[in-house]
Amino acid sequence: MPRLVQHRLDPASRLARLMLAEYGVPVDLEDIKPWTREPQLLEINPAATVPILIEDGEPPVVGVLAVINAIEANHAPSAVAGLFPARARERAETWRLLEWVLMKLNDEVTRYIIEEKIVKRDRRGATPEPGVLRVAKANLVEHMLYFNWLFATRHWIAGDSMTLADFALAAHLSSLDYLGDVSWDTSVETRQWYARIKSRPAFRTLLNDRVVGMPAAAGYADLDF
Amino acid sequence: MPRLVQHRLDPASRLARLMLAEYGVPVDLEDIKPWTREPQLLEINPAATVPILIEDGEPPVVGVLAVINAIEANHAPSAVAGLFPARARERAETWRLLEWVLMKLNDEVTRYIIEEKIVKRDRRGATPEPGVLRVAKANLVEHMLYFNWLFATRHWIAGDSMTLADFALAAHLSSLDYLGDVSWDTSVETRQWYARIKSRPAFRTLLNDRVVGMPAAAGYADLDF
Repeated sequence: MPRLVQHRLDPASRLARLMLAEYGVPVDLEDIKPWTREPQLLEINPAATVPILIEDGEPPVVGVLAVINAIEANHAPSAVAGLFPARARERAETWRLLEWVLMKLNDEVTRYIIEEKIVKRDRRGATPEPGVLRVAKANLVEHMLYFNWLFATRHWIAGDSMTLADFALAAHLSSLDYLGDVSWDTSVETRQWYARIKSRPAFRTLLNDRVVGMPAAAGYADLDF
Repeated sequence: MPRLVQHRLDPASRLARLMLAEYGVPVDLEDIKPWTREPQLLEINPAATVPILIEDGEPPVVGVLAVINAIEANHAPSAVAGLFPARARERAETWRLLEWVLMKLNDEVTRYIIEEKIVKRDRRGATPEPGVLRVAKANLVEHMLYFNWLFATRHWIAGDSMTLADFALAAHLSSLDYLGDVSWDTSVETRQWYARIKSRPAFRTLLNDRVVGMPAAAGYADLDF
């Protein structure tokens, strides 16, 4: 069985788990804290990031770009039934929005909220910076406006079909939602899309996650939130 | 002929140009300043990033991940002769190092140096922050140590064959080298690799680039530097 080295609130790890669940691939989850930079982690990945996918007899697949490409190549039911659309223009739109989520949303919102609320909680004497959280949440408002604008005319984020870009955005929003940082009241279009993707069987694995000593925000696991 | 909307010292644009040149695809270059956020740019790409690839009769392909995947799909001579290795483990290593360059090296070094030296130079009254440049250059030293360590045992960065990860790293280092920020004296292994990749015909397009009022650092275009 493949093994996924991950952190349960890390959005890149959640993206890998959503893909594996969607493709019906059972997986052993090994939860680590990448920010503690244990020597065993650094030996496999000097960047000290997760996810890392380990399949029998193969060297570890390291980092979110390598992992999503490996899962797609090894486990998609077929090239046309996978999470990357077959047609060039939908494929380009999927990559554009993947980059938006993995690079822009992550850089402007998610990485700061994870750092302040999860990593610092784990470091003796460290306390979250209210100023950083305030900026990250203001940035999230701008991102949600853009997603609302997209979902006003699209059933899924890259067009008519669900793609990996939907899973990437859902992975990030689910981490932020666990921490209580998503204002669903003011994001009607994105909320409708999130309710739809949240009710997919693949999503169940994420909704059962709990971090010790840090309960999920109200509504996190409710399909009717 | 395809058109590439780009900035000549933007490393992601340089990566796209290296790929196109390697595959022998002539391209019209349209040089813009993405940081001025012109309405025509924002309409195509609300993230205000380059490169953007425009091929006849197709909608624009936006962002570095979409562009590299589109160039590979449309212009690689064959799946085995392209810049993504055919074997799974080399492919995973290529994606790992692409992520290293596009996300980690960019986040810790290149984006700061471009912002301080190129973007601020273009903004009336803005001056580079010496503290930011100092941190970015200290980070670059750490990255070079890692690249030296890799090149001590590898001919190309992901293994025995040249891959897209080599082009990504070369694109970033060439921008930094134009600005005089690479200490080649202390990076013997990486310098040997850079001399090799710099002498490929595909590299010529970059070596002829000049930014008005900002001459290239000594040695930028020399094959023997």
